[in-house]
Amino acid sequence: MDELRNALIYNPTKNPERTNATVERIFEVLENVLGADASQHINNLNNLLQIKDLRSPINEQTADRIIAYFDKSGLTREQIDGVTFQLQLSEISTAEAIELHSQFKIPVSRPEEDIIPVLGKGCWIMDTKGKWYLDMDSNYSATNLGMANEQIARGLYNQASTLISMKEDRIQIARSRFLKEIHTMMPEGLNQFYWQNSGGEAVDKALKIAKAFTGTTNVIAFKGGFHGRTHGAVAVTWNEKYRKPFGLHQLDWVHFAEFNNLKSVEDLLKQTGAKIIILEMVQGEEAGNLPATPEFIDGLWALAKKHNALIIDDEVQAGFGRTAVKSGDWFACMSYNVTPDIMVIGKSFGGGYPVTAVVTRKEIAEAMQHGYDGSTFGGNPMAMVAALIATRQMRAKNITQNVIERSQQLLEGLKELQQKHPVVGEIRGRGLMVAFDLGSAQNVERVQTALRENGVKASLSTGSFIRFLPPTVISEGEVNYFLEKLDRSLSVL
Amino acid sequence: MDELRNALIYNPTKNPERTNATVERIFEVLENVLGADASQHINNLNNLLQIKDLRSPINEQTADRIIAYFDKSGLTREQIDGVTFQLQLSEISTAEAIELHSQFKIPVSRPEEDIIPVLGKGCWIMDTKGKWYLDMDSNYSATNLGMANEQIARGLYNQASTLISMKEDRIQIARSRFLKEIHTMMPEGLNQFYWQNSGGEAVDKALKIAKAFTGTTNVIAFKGGFHGRTHGAVAVTWNEKYRKPFGLHQLDWVHFAEFNNLKSVEDLLKQTGAKIIILEMVQGEEAGNLPATPEFIDGLWALAKKHNALIIDDEVQAGFGRTAVKSGDWFACMSYNVTPDIMVIGKSFGGGYPVTAVVTRKEIAEAMQHGYDGSTFGGNPMAMVAALIATRQMRAKNITQNVIERSQQLLEGLKELQQKHPVVGEIRGRGLMVAFDLGSAQNVERVQTALRENGVKASLSTGSFIRFLPPTVISEGEVNYFLEKLDRSLSVL
Repeated sequence: MDELRNALIYNPTKNPERTNATVERIFEVLENVLGADASQHINNLNNLLQIKDLRSPINEQTADRIIAYFDKSGLTREQIDGVTFQLQLSEISTAEAIELHSQFKIPVSRPEEDIIPVLGKGCWIMDTKGKWYLDMDSNYSATNLGMANEQIARGLYNQASTLISMKEDRIQIARSRFLKEIHTMMPEGLNQFYWQNSGGEAVDKALKIAKAFTGTTNVIAFKGGFHGRTHGAVAVTWNEKYRKPFGLHQLDWVHFAEFNNLKSVEDLLKQTGAKIIILEMVQGEEAGNLPATPEFIDGLWALAKKHNALIIDDEVQAGFGRTAVKSGDWFACMSYNVTPDIMVIGKSFGGGYPVTAVVTRKEIAEAMQHGYDGSTFGGNPMAMVAALIATRQMRAKNITQNVIERSQQLLEGLKELQQKHPVVGEIRGRGLMVAFDLGSAQNVERVQTALRENGVKASLSTGSFIRFLPPTVISEGEVNYFLEKLDRSLSVL
Repeated sequence: MDELRNALIYNPTKNPERTNATVERIFEVLENVLGADASQHINNLNNLLQIKDLRSPINEQTADRIIAYFDKSGLTREQIDGVTFQLQLSEISTAEAIELHSQFKIPVSRPEEDIIPVLGKGCWIMDTKGKWYLDMDSNYSATNLGMANEQIARGLYNQASTLISMKEDRIQIARSRFLKEIHTMMPEGLNQFYWQNSGGEAVDKALKIAKAFTGTTNVIAFKGGFHGRTHGAVAVTWNEKYRKPFGLHQLDWVHFAEFNNLKSVEDLLKQTGAKIIILEMVQGEEAGNLPATPEFIDGLWALAKKHNALIIDDEVQAGFGRTAVKSGDWFACMSYNVTPDIMVIGKSFGGGYPVTAVVTRKEIAEAMQHGYDGSTFGGNPMAMVAALIATRQMRAKNITQNVIERSQQLLEGLKELQQKHPVVGEIRGRGLMVAFDLGSAQNVERVQTALRENGVKASLSTGSFIRFLPPTVISEGEVNYFLEKLDRSLSVL
């Protein structure tokens, strides 16, 4: 019963991240584990404990009484272990977690409360109800190696036990170690790094560096593009809803061209004299995983050369193998056989830890002088440790090859389902950035709900497109599992 | 010799964050530990190993030969332990760490290579040479609880072993837990949170929220203010060097008022019709820890009320007890007895983990609608775990009381030194944001160098002011140690 005690009363040495359990959560877990049989135990405990506030953390005396009750409750060892396991993962109830979120959250986004995850294992996540789901989202490519990774956890523990943080301008060992390895993964010539924490922040800084180098401020971005939320990043993001409430919709320095339309870019280059272009090679969020055509990329590079403009390639979602076409394509630009002037990388290379970067070549980097920027957390030792371990794993696991094979399997499977379910429209994909059209946002929601009931977490969508960004470590069997559940889920339409 | 082996060859299970040691580092550590006696062993090892590239990671066979050499080298147990200890903390040399940094870093800031830290213990840090320093910087208030904290390390390990990340819009347990505790620390009414990663990012989002609420974009900021580096944050930052290279120095929506000058603010309010004011109550970076006068703050709040403007209080450096005047002043605004409309908090509440937030009251929060913003890493479970443990420790340690006592001790000590060393000019301070004038930047650098030689890391300055932001857990004995070393260091002038 020691384990149960540790799940009821937090131990500042062993589980400093927890609090004491609440009675509401104990009752919820009994229901999760025992189903209908829970009610008698809940009644008994209610009578025994006489707790009024079910959400106040219990004290040690109450914990002792609960343990004594379980001891003579007639529950099996397996049942008590099941209860203990779920209590260890969350000691507060699902309902309370949801209420706390709504009570204290600035409502910038729609809260997702259908699955409240507490545990990851490979490509799978378990929620507060004890149910497992195959993850087809990867936190927008942030958890490509799964949501719990023992090596990363161990490395972060070691680093936090020695030196948890160090400001960006002070040299430290974890960053030097990572630099020694990462530059070999980058496209030729792109070996100057500036570390940041979020994708938006890195895009914002990439724009600053491009502005400093060119001595100009005009930027050509693309309709359907998404680059983040800071003043700089959101300015070059297409969706007007993300800009207008903040008066960032009529900036004189941003110009939106049509994606996959060279004439539109050339017209704007001539009209504005812009020397900076920013794009995602596979437009994710806003356009629904829409890849650039190879002709567009070739033409864009030629146009940029002709007009002496530099190109910022935002690979926050597409990078680190997700869009690989041939083995070793760590970045989308490699698969299109071009090299950008500035690249923004992020998310996946921290294995879930917040870390991003601007990467450029020496000539452009040198436009930045000491004092031009600075960061407390950029490239901190924890971020660099996570990044070193995550990128090592990506190489050891030959991720680009896995992406190529799983992408082919997934796209073929989707085409078969398209034959069977005429509601499936256009299928898009490059690597493991995949989407298909279901005709309406309502249809997307119905299929997402059905998928969830069938044990698949697929919460991403753009209009009538449902989007998938599974972990890049997804296996053949898991893709098959997904296709089978999708087949069943499409039948609800 | 198992420990030595683990320091030479990294173990993917135990130390996945490391690489194999280099010969250059092994030689450096021998010098650190043995001093002049190192040279014979370095010669012997050079002859024995015949390694050409001193910076290439050694292989297992070389490790075995080194271990065999140490075994019969005549070195004492203590000497071998000393070598092992330093190798465990860094397996690459100081010189290589510095070169990697300069080779691969976009030069946005001056690299600080004088102390390369590898280990923290309380308020102390050890560098690659094995020398210990009292930390008087705290990474600009990011590591107020020290740079290595066993509870935080353990909590982060537990979280990374279960669920390392979860996007901002999905409800998760670590965040709900922290919400349940943090809102009780906040000023009355400020209980709506939006989590971010860096201070600049949070300032950027605070401006967006203020703009959405007021339906206006004009902002009054202050000369001498510093708020961060994204397009939005740097726009309201005073130093033109941080804005001009990016064309952000002539924005029509930003207006700079004189700090501690109400007339200047009122003139701008009338002239521009601005409805948004942003300030640091103690101007850190740019002004050299310059506190607002109580009269200025009272008057500013009255002006804002009169002109129906809202106030954003940037407490990224000042918050979480650093500027406490009375016990329980977790924020500078509490010590000035005012409540801002929006507060930006950051750095210290993650105990070194990158986490910041915008905090506001319900009425303002509701100006944000679903989709107006979003974040992959904001409020991720690791950040929330670190924040829960760090803020619990702050309360358990009664940090505000410690700040009050240590601040008084420090300021009194500085006044005594001022008597003895006439070069010491104006002394400024509020809580543990302290600075004094040394007449010139050259003098500051000389004193910083002398402090370093005397075992004190104090690398912050603004013009002729040397600045100190020690960990808020600093003890009476440590403040005395600092004052004694400062006394000695001032003698170099």
